[in-house]
Amino acid sequence: MDKKPRRPAGALTRRDLLRVLGSGAAAAAIPTLPIIARADSARADVVVVGGGFAGLTAARTLHRAGKNVVVLEARNRVGGRVKAGKIAGLPVDVGGMWVGPTQTRLLELIKEYGLHLVPELDKGKNILEVNKRRFVAEGQALGWDKQTEAEYERVIKQIDLLSKQLPLAAPWTMPRAEDYDTMSADEWFRTSTKNALIIEILRGLVRGIFTADAHQISFLFFLFYIRSGDNFDALASLGGDSAQAWTVQETMHQVAIKMAAELDGKIIFETPVRAISQDDNGVVVESMKGSWSADEVIVAVPLPLSVRIQYQPPLPSERDILAQHMPMGSVIKYWVAYEKPFWRDTGFNGIVISSDPPSNLVCADLTPPSGSPGLLIGFIEGSNAMKWTGHPIEERKKAIVDRFVSFFGPQAAHPIDYEDQDWPSDPWSRGCYVASMAPGIMTTVGKTIRQPFGRIHWAGTETSERWMGYIDGAIRSGDHVAAEIMALKK
Amino acid sequence: MDKKPRRPAGALTRRDLLRVLGSGAAAAAIPTLPIIARADSARADVVVVGGGFAGLTAARTLHRAGKNVVVLEARNRVGGRVKAGKIAGLPVDVGGMWVGPTQTRLLELIKEYGLHLVPELDKGKNILEVNKRRFVAEGQALGWDKQTEAEYERVIKQIDLLSKQLPLAAPWTMPRAEDYDTMSADEWFRTSTKNALIIEILRGLVRGIFTADAHQISFLFFLFYIRSGDNFDALASLGGDSAQAWTVQETMHQVAIKMAAELDGKIIFETPVRAISQDDNGVVVESMKGSWSADEVIVAVPLPLSVRIQYQPPLPSERDILAQHMPMGSVIKYWVAYEKPFWRDTGFNGIVISSDPPSNLVCADLTPPSGSPGLLIGFIEGSNAMKWTGHPIEERKKAIVDRFVSFFGPQAAHPIDYEDQDWPSDPWSRGCYVASMAPGIMTTVGKTIRQPFGRIHWAGTETSERWMGYIDGAIRSGDHVAAEIMALKK
Repeated sequence: MDKKPRRPAGALTRRDLLRVLGSGAAAAAIPTLPIIARADSARADVVVVGGGFAGLTAARTLHRAGKNVVVLEARNRVGGRVKAGKIAGLPVDVGGMWVGPTQTRLLELIKEYGLHLVPELDKGKNILEVNKRRFVAEGQALGWDKQTEAEYERVIKQIDLLSKQLPLAAPWTMPRAEDYDTMSADEWFRTSTKNALIIEILRGLVRGIFTADAHQISFLFFLFYIRSGDNFDALASLGGDSAQAWTVQETMHQVAIKMAAELDGKIIFETPVRAISQDDNGVVVESMKGSWSADEVIVAVPLPLSVRIQYQPPLPSERDILAQHMPMGSVIKYWVAYEKPFWRDTGFNGIVISSDPPSNLVCADLTPPSGSPGLLIGFIEGSNAMKWTGHPIEERKKAIVDRFVSFFGPQAAHPIDYEDQDWPSDPWSRGCYVASMAPGIMTTVGKTIRQPFGRIHWAGTETSERWMGYIDGAIRSGDHVAAEIMALKK
Repeated sequence: MDKKPRRPAGALTRRDLLRVLGSGAAAAAIPTLPIIARADSARADVVVVGGGFAGLTAARTLHRAGKNVVVLEARNRVGGRVKAGKIAGLPVDVGGMWVGPTQTRLLELIKEYGLHLVPELDKGKNILEVNKRRFVAEGQALGWDKQTEAEYERVIKQIDLLSKQLPLAAPWTMPRAEDYDTMSADEWFRTSTKNALIIEILRGLVRGIFTADAHQISFLFFLFYIRSGDNFDALASLGGDSAQAWTVQETMHQVAIKMAAELDGKIIFETPVRAISQDDNGVVVESMKGSWSADEVIVAVPLPLSVRIQYQPPLPSERDILAQHMPMGSVIKYWVAYEKPFWRDTGFNGIVISSDPPSNLVCADLTPPSGSPGLLIGFIEGSNAMKWTGHPIEERKKAIVDRFVSFFGPQAAHPIDYEDQDWPSDPWSRGCYVASMAPGIMTTVGKTIRQPFGRIHWAGTETSERWMGYIDGAIRSGDHVAAEIMALKK
């Protein structure tokens, strides 16, 4: 006798679904949207909503296993928060771009597709700026006085120790979870050190890592995120064995292109999904280009955007509350091209980290191996991005170039090109890199994050236990959801 | 020469819109959704999305002024967060229900429609519970020791003084606005008093007033909300001249019914709006029941839900960021009916305020003037509602009735009826009473809250300067947006 359950633990069963659909009290709240099977309706085993790394990974795995899949993508391209652009004629990533040594799923794909890694430049002098004071150091050192350096190390060690107490699959069960969850990361910083420089740099690093401000995110979520991505230094550093160790010579976006090539004809572009209905017979996914019926659907869009689809029956309230309290981070990524990487002439590696507006990861050197053009990239993050989003690009260019001049001198005043990507303005991401949980959410409704709802399965980097917020996490979420569907009893 | 501007200040002009639609960089991010004018398309001067108090007020005003309006409502009823239900055969409000003396716009409507006010019972003994300690007092008194009472008065006075420094139209300009905005209300409480009882009761009152937890809302937003609704006591009290002074004998929902009657044939039910497109020629509003073309559209749904519609061109990023960081409060409203209001026999007025879970406004007496049945109503708010939403109603009934027994004795154990309304489960409200701004939002993107976007105008209680979060605020927002449209140059 086959005793394997039809559904993963915690999932809504078919019986639950019928109960929801059939019960008097709940039914009263459900709008009378009938399941539509239009004449132009097409059929698949699994519909995947969103062709970012999560959706592509899941679709690829299911396709290889013989499932009939279709990917519905709102844009005219794949990759989601990974996107190609050009500066000074050179193809570059204007979205996710870095990969680190423990991001093994992403490394596997890069290897499989024969792409090439380029180490991030970390040799030479880097600059740290805190409250307008500037420190210059070599490599990973900070350039602070010994006492501040020691205090910084103590605080970071405490963060890493706390994060290691946290079980990735259930962060809400760690000791003192509720205390940490109702406290912002900012408040924990302020109660854990009296050193104003350290508090400011931690705030800057949080904006750089989370694209959210420390006063907006739960400290418990902060600990989860650190644990999900190895440790604090791995997320806060550049080069070395950090999460920002390498870029891809052909652009990271090529990984998405190669995955999409395996799904030739299975990806329908410019097809935003508007509604998903399910009942005991299956699921219907509706878009302006018609509807698809399937056995299961994978929703692989940024978590806060997943509730912008109309569901029938409606999503459980816990899931909707989670999405409402988990806003996307805000970030504008910029690229500045110069004839040559002139900062190297004076021994700088192009890395500037700052606590000051408008950018905290001010710059890193992305000059191609050929040595020309000289490329600096950086980010306007969190509350700074909220202030600069939607402005004309020329205003941002001036602010960034002026800043570069203040760090690298008058040679920085004359870039040959400037481009930036205003992620909050993108209607299908509405922010980047990742959504963060507000205080009080992880311990109340956080446990719903990976719970399927009937025939609806969730993917996207926000749903990954490991490397949440990173490309690697998106791939792992795709693996997870594909396995979840393959495990369903026929 | 007519020099009146075509648009209110801050609005997107037709020229701006063309620029957005035509510019290369922005256009790349815009999906290629064409404006659809289907064969079944209908035409109006103004389309109103949402038939709550805001939408009905705006539609009524524009209709009276001779405009051809249509209201598209997702549900099969009007009223939005005001909704009628029944308990023990008696019609009651399971949503918004109270009105206070300075809520003049709502009072005008109640008078206009010949409905009757019933004063909230406030004479007799009420109960205050803090950290399981119980205090009994008469009327508005708290029953605390003199020292605690004095300290509580001092803190509330400080809140009211600060809130009076704040200009309602531009809270982000008050002194120290950024400091107050990056701080949660909870943190301000803890730095403003050392009295643990007071901190706990303030937390409970915040959940009762905002249906959000003090650690989730910006202190600047908290001050705005207090100022928007007179003062702290007006929001925290019951009966007297508070915001909870009266209910409507025929139910508050009758006000919505009467407004809807004036719009006979103009309200299209069970018509969730999915997309709004605009260009220089007009606006097209799409639903599953076809599309409507118009000159202007009013979006009068709860603010966080307004971004679940697909807009073409996409909304400005600031507006989307605002919606993402302004989640709906969570609340479950319950009604418990007894043969008689037996608590009155021992001198209680049925009012219990608590800092303890699962409910903070534990109960108030809503027994009809006839004296039977005895009715107590109360609320499970904020994080408590996040824990109790989606559970079977019987579980909540047991928790609430057990609680009533602990306050009023064994007679409370045998209600003749119990009903509750789980607002976060309602797909067209996804919470109640109101959306609150998270820390850091009001001073960054808060100023977009009433800014029209081309032909799109925003209403709903969240957009009101006065009585935001209340029915009166919804009506005022309807007045505001109707005036905004009437002022447009033809």
